[in-house]
Amino acid sequence: MELRLKKTHVTFKGKTQFFEHDSNVTKTMMSFSTYVPDGEVTNAIIWLSGLTCNEENFITKAGSQRILSGTNTMIICPDTSPRGLSLPGENDSYDFGSGAGFYVNATTEGYKDHYRMYDYIMDEVVSILKSHFRIQKVSIMGHSMGGHGALVLGMRKPEVFHSVSAFSPIVNPTQCPWGKKALKGYLGDEEDTWKDYDTCELLKSGKKRQDTLLVDQGLADEFLEEQLLTKNLESMALEYGQGVNIRYQEGHDHSYYFIQTFLNDHIDFHLSALNG
Amino acid sequence: MELRLKKTHVTFKGKTQFFEHDSNVTKTMMSFSTYVPDGEVTNAIIWLSGLTCNEENFITKAGSQRILSGTNTMIICPDTSPRGLSLPGENDSYDFGSGAGFYVNATTEGYKDHYRMYDYIMDEVVSILKSHFRIQKVSIMGHSMGGHGALVLGMRKPEVFHSVSAFSPIVNPTQCPWGKKALKGYLGDEEDTWKDYDTCELLKSGKKRQDTLLVDQGLADEFLEEQLLTKNLESMALEYGQGVNIRYQEGHDHSYYFIQTFLNDHIDFHLSALNG
Repeated sequence: MELRLKKTHVTFKGKTQFFEHDSNVTKTMMSFSTYVPDGEVTNAIIWLSGLTCNEENFITKAGSQRILSGTNTMIICPDTSPRGLSLPGENDSYDFGSGAGFYVNATTEGYKDHYRMYDYIMDEVVSILKSHFRIQKVSIMGHSMGGHGALVLGMRKPEVFHSVSAFSPIVNPTQCPWGKKALKGYLGDEEDTWKDYDTCELLKSGKKRQDTLLVDQGLADEFLEEQLLTKNLESMALEYGQGVNIRYQEGHDHSYYFIQTFLNDHIDFHLSALNG
Repeated sequence: MELRLKKTHVTFKGKTQFFEHDSNVTKTMMSFSTYVPDGEVTNAIIWLSGLTCNEENFITKAGSQRILSGTNTMIICPDTSPRGLSLPGENDSYDFGSGAGFYVNATTEGYKDHYRMYDYIMDEVVSILKSHFRIQKVSIMGHSMGGHGALVLGMRKPEVFHSVSAFSPIVNPTQCPWGKKALKGYLGDEEDTWKDYDTCELLKSGKKRQDTLLVDQGLADEFLEEQLLTKNLESMALEYGQGVNIRYQEGHDHSYYFIQTFLNDHIDFHLSALNG
């Protein structure tokens, strides 16, 4: 796997970098950003972004460099979908296709050959971390659609991800408009196949992590009631005995201002798990 | 002066907000962002942005909220020019007109009625701070073109600004391509009139502050040699006895990754002056 380094910015003695590479999974060029602190770095956190985002949003806005500087842990922020394929419907809406990969392996015509973001993260990004960055342990977190991605990957592969956290995740996509549209578009009409990509359904099916998940959710988030359905995660986790620390944050919305406010807690949470 | 609140994001217990208002100085609508920490706030720092920026860049990318949270000091980030006038040449290049006001009072035809960013900051923004935000003391800082603005306003009005700092400032605009183009476009061919907006020329003319300026300059900044001319400030300050702490930062470029790395030092510098 050849990585092409596009740009380097020295930041807090470490390096913020932008890469692209030809993906064996998506059969397209894929992009990601990283922040690698100065000194010995043995662990990584994968950040999965939300709808409309690419590899830039988190690394420019969240302030992660200040927090990770001086630690042994890097962050990697992949783009949220393949780009530039011109598949039918790929560029017609903000919540499907480009910028909206939903971290699934598509099975529908056209999409199935490229929109395989589950495998892209699980296999290719994790493999890049191990081979290129010499990383030993990996944790995962994300926001909104990316919070959904982090929870799904973390629940399905506890042996790969040492800890899992999310900001404003879509916890029950089979039951909300964003999720239904995306899962139908990528997986087709057979709703049973959607359940592999739904955190609440994974809990129902018996998936369980021994550690506790961390979730922050703003109470002024405009998407809370219709799309995110955080209460469903709360009740499913209780019913199936999954530890989860859901923190409802008064006054906070769905933005990166919310993320930057609580990012310190999430990174501390992952550092403890990775170095524990 | 009626301010129209466009958006509020709770951030670190304080509020990141976006405003617009009809300006008496530019005779256009003007925009700015603010971060006001929770609790009693009596002081403000004005941030002036660089070429192509608007009121969003700093407040989304620099991580100032984390640093200002818990202090008695807010920040205000004005847009870098009037917008939407369709003056001749206003939208033809990134370094003149829209997004490139250069913090001068224009005297050339068309521009003289609107491009009065010096007065806009000095009179209207300072007045908004005092009347709307009930601020007692004000400091100023900026980046690149905005670093130039901060130095010029700070040198000319030490009685208004308690402290002055800059990232990668254009210190001698009468001698660099960006400055020459802008000063000629806004002030005309009479180069003597340009000197009021040139930090090095202000020092030559006898302007002096009793306090020390703080300047950070990346050594990997692509604009250092041709546009920023930091060495000229160094020699002029020495010759005319102006205290200035110029810190050359190895490996750092012209980006917001550079700014976020050293912003803590700049804010501490201003907090000391404002609360001293």
